[in-house]
Amino acid sequence: MNIADDNGYVLNLKVTKPSLENNTADVERIKQALKKEIGIDSIKIPWNIIKKIPGVLRKSDHAIKAVVFKNIEGWILVDIVKPDKAQLFLGVAADIGTTRVVIRIVDLESQQVLIETDFDNPQIEIGPDVLSRIHYAKDQKGLDKLSFLLIQGFNLNIVELCKKIDCKTDDIYLFAGAGNTIMTHLFLGLEPSGIIREPYIPCINIPGSVKADKLGLKLNPNAYCFLFPNIGSYFGGDLISGILYSNLNKLDNPSIMVDVGTNAEVVVGCKEWLVACAGAAGPALEGGVSDIGMTAKPGVIDTVSVNKDTNQLEYTTIENKPPVGICGSGMIDLAAALFLSQKIDIRGKFIKDNCNDRLFEQESIDYFILVDKENSGTGKKICISQVDLNSLTSSKAAMYTILEVIVSNTAGLNFKDLENFYVAGTFGSFINPESAISIGMLPDIKRDKFKVLGNSSLGGATRLLTDPAAFNEISRIRKGITYIELNVNAEFMNMFSGAKFYPHTDKSRFPSVKCLE
Amino acid sequence: MNIADDNGYVLNLKVTKPSLENNTADVERIKQALKKEIGIDSIKIPWNIIKKIPGVLRKSDHAIKAVVFKNIEGWILVDIVKPDKAQLFLGVAADIGTTRVVIRIVDLESQQVLIETDFDNPQIEIGPDVLSRIHYAKDQKGLDKLSFLLIQGFNLNIVELCKKIDCKTDDIYLFAGAGNTIMTHLFLGLEPSGIIREPYIPCINIPGSVKADKLGLKLNPNAYCFLFPNIGSYFGGDLISGILYSNLNKLDNPSIMVDVGTNAEVVVGCKEWLVACAGAAGPALEGGVSDIGMTAKPGVIDTVSVNKDTNQLEYTTIENKPPVGICGSGMIDLAAALFLSQKIDIRGKFIKDNCNDRLFEQESIDYFILVDKENSGTGKKICISQVDLNSLTSSKAAMYTILEVIVSNTAGLNFKDLENFYVAGTFGSFINPESAISIGMLPDIKRDKFKVLGNSSLGGATRLLTDPAAFNEISRIRKGITYIELNVNAEFMNMFSGAKFYPHTDKSRFPSVKCLE
Repeated sequence: MNIADDNGYVLNLKVTKPSLENNTADVERIKQALKKEIGIDSIKIPWNIIKKIPGVLRKSDHAIKAVVFKNIEGWILVDIVKPDKAQLFLGVAADIGTTRVVIRIVDLESQQVLIETDFDNPQIEIGPDVLSRIHYAKDQKGLDKLSFLLIQGFNLNIVELCKKIDCKTDDIYLFAGAGNTIMTHLFLGLEPSGIIREPYIPCINIPGSVKADKLGLKLNPNAYCFLFPNIGSYFGGDLISGILYSNLNKLDNPSIMVDVGTNAEVVVGCKEWLVACAGAAGPALEGGVSDIGMTAKPGVIDTVSVNKDTNQLEYTTIENKPPVGICGSGMIDLAAALFLSQKIDIRGKFIKDNCNDRLFEQESIDYFILVDKENSGTGKKICISQVDLNSLTSSKAAMYTILEVIVSNTAGLNFKDLENFYVAGTFGSFINPESAISIGMLPDIKRDKFKVLGNSSLGGATRLLTDPAAFNEISRIRKGITYIELNVNAEFMNMFSGAKFYPHTDKSRFPSVKCLE
Repeated sequence: MNIADDNGYVLNLKVTKPSLENNTADVERIKQALKKEIGIDSIKIPWNIIKKIPGVLRKSDHAIKAVVFKNIEGWILVDIVKPDKAQLFLGVAADIGTTRVVIRIVDLESQQVLIETDFDNPQIEIGPDVLSRIHYAKDQKGLDKLSFLLIQGFNLNIVELCKKIDCKTDDIYLFAGAGNTIMTHLFLGLEPSGIIREPYIPCINIPGSVKADKLGLKLNPNAYCFLFPNIGSYFGGDLISGILYSNLNKLDNPSIMVDVGTNAEVVVGCKEWLVACAGAAGPALEGGVSDIGMTAKPGVIDTVSVNKDTNQLEYTTIENKPPVGICGSGMIDLAAALFLSQKIDIRGKFIKDNCNDRLFEQESIDYFILVDKENSGTGKKICISQVDLNSLTSSKAAMYTILEVIVSNTAGLNFKDLENFYVAGTFGSFINPESAISIGMLPDIKRDKFKVLGNSSLGGATRLLTDPAAFNEISRIRKGITYIELNVNAEFMNMFSGAKFYPHTDKSRFPSVKCLE
């Protein structure tokens, strides 16, 4: 680590006063002070900062506060001000999700998170998924609109947060954002269409730091904005940020980080190597396919379990409201409960004899009644169909196969060799590993190895705002990763076929999974 | 020299087309092409250029023209365009003088100068000298006005030049300007007041390259503008540019470069070392003190000589018009002619007996009639007074003393050791060395050593626009120079006293100077 990195981004700087013996120019005396006192060898000073230097130096009697930041090429002098105890120096860390955006305001001096909020990505107005948005961005007008919506969403929410903690947007000097490759492009107003069509070319992999006002962000007029780099179209800055947050790249023994979702993103490695892949696991994992699937809100079933005495299913709902649907982690619980209570077989098909009156058939499709009409919050019974279950089976099989490909086939390890199993992402933090193992979605390893990271993308962005050394670490992570293309070949399909069983055709892989007798 | 420097600033670049095997992002493929084909290891790409990259690459089938430039930190990608045979890539080189500005348009591809013009520095409207302008710039409004006037002057004249050669200001991608430290500051809109008051602190020594539009220059919207660095308040970018143009820093044997004028600036050195100083020689050298002194225009006396047969003075005028006054170089000729024809003595005082009826006295001051009333273009006789002559004597003595201090006392050389005597500046190019030696203003060395450089400041700026290697050379020149403060101490005053004689108290220094018998 560089000495300069220890000082954070807000520096108290004593600049040598000019004399006939030392009549170096103002700008160069600031550079000398940054070198001598902080260890910053070279720094870019934007023209508008140069303009204010003589005035600030005179007014502050040469004792100034300097805000610095970094870029690929090195340090940037973001601003200099006359010290004032009341002045705040803030940064905004952001996880720029396709669906949801989460932002935090960080005090750059105390390194504390002051406040946090989240909001729907306003681009949802154009289209819920990235494909419809990229289609919309095919001309400059559409691209500008998408970019404007996102930036405006940031501006509005940042103003709200500032009001709540009684600060000004002018106090915000730095911004660090992490998103997938498409969100990063749309945030920066860069053409995204190459990302989704062969040969899958982003406009940029390493955007670095850009003046925030160029992007339309209403922060301090001198503020800089850093976007995490991506590795390619399918491995975005949010994952690089997540690895930074997990410290995977610093561990002695191999560990894994998994972001479970429609697109499953997986990184395996340690301080010596990192391999990564991403693959479609399917929306079923997030409860996004079935009729009853919904995102978390009051009344949504969030856990399902088996009453060992009655062998019947039990559930809880958010805020204990009458059930209205089921969320993704509830679906995984439900599948596990159905399997453990032997209401589905190892192929994931309903066993009529074991379901008794909970099962009915309609238009040749089996439905399992999870909630009776009288207990339901919707006035109708809540059911899961064989079709819903098949989707989940495919998704969990895809998830397991991706893990197997990268851990066994690529890294040449056994699952039990992994020291930590980090589960990243908001969705991941709700998954009960016990259930996920029971259905064969996650490997049967010691439960204490599972560690929930939460929003690791936001965590990495926050880390960057409190630790300048993170810049070099990001570069090292990016350069060190080997990205594996998941070719869906014959071998993958064979592995996938085995994984479509509950928990797997090879039962010996899941010794701890035992159905209730 | 770096390989990359050989290619100039306009590059024909074949970017690898994307494929499933090479799906690096567009921006990074441009960087790879710049590295592989041109040898540019790292380059800054501004955000607005990043935005246009995907479009230009697709439209040009990945064969593009790239305009690059340099800064202190390294290369900058100024613009990329789809190749078009009709498109011009131009640069503007400028000498930003306190009084006069000279600009050239350079074709960056053919490296030819296309057109040149000069104009009065529009800041003269505020004040003719730098002191009055700095006083005016004491508040932001005044500074902005001064900066605006200068930039507007550039914009108007550049538009005019473009019209004449049938090109657009949009074709101008690069700007290189050299001026003294104060002009550099006013051009950049930077506070200049520290430069003239103790301890003489510029705002900046190394301004580097700035986006031209930030300064208000109306060139291509992506154009960059480089200002030559200064060494301190009294050693400006114009001199660094002049040294670059003279190649002084590459010569095997010591040479000297002198910019003669109100402020005499002198550099002595060779490839191993450079010493420089600047000192007030006085406006008399430029003909700026006497009543009859004026700048070059029709009717101004530009040469004066002695008719060996009659021992009388003869003169020529610009465009052979009836004489109206005398320019600076004419003044030096005049003093030499007066001395060689023994009309003044070694102290520079008129010898009544030798002047005969050409001399008259008025209010106790002697006047020498250079042009009779009947030959004059003004209707009055044109005379030089003893007071005028005394000023010239002081100035020529100051000039010689400065040369002696730097060559003998500082560099420890004899004048005859100098391989080249470069005379820089527009004024310098009109000086007759023979006359300057006769009066003891320049040392008595072999006449073929005197070389007129012309506007070396403009020459250096032009060189920079045709040779990227010049950037490193400028840094080397700047770092390599030892700047000598000319302390006017007892020793200096002694040397100055000797130099106030014609040609000098020590006649042996000027063996070739012989008065006519």
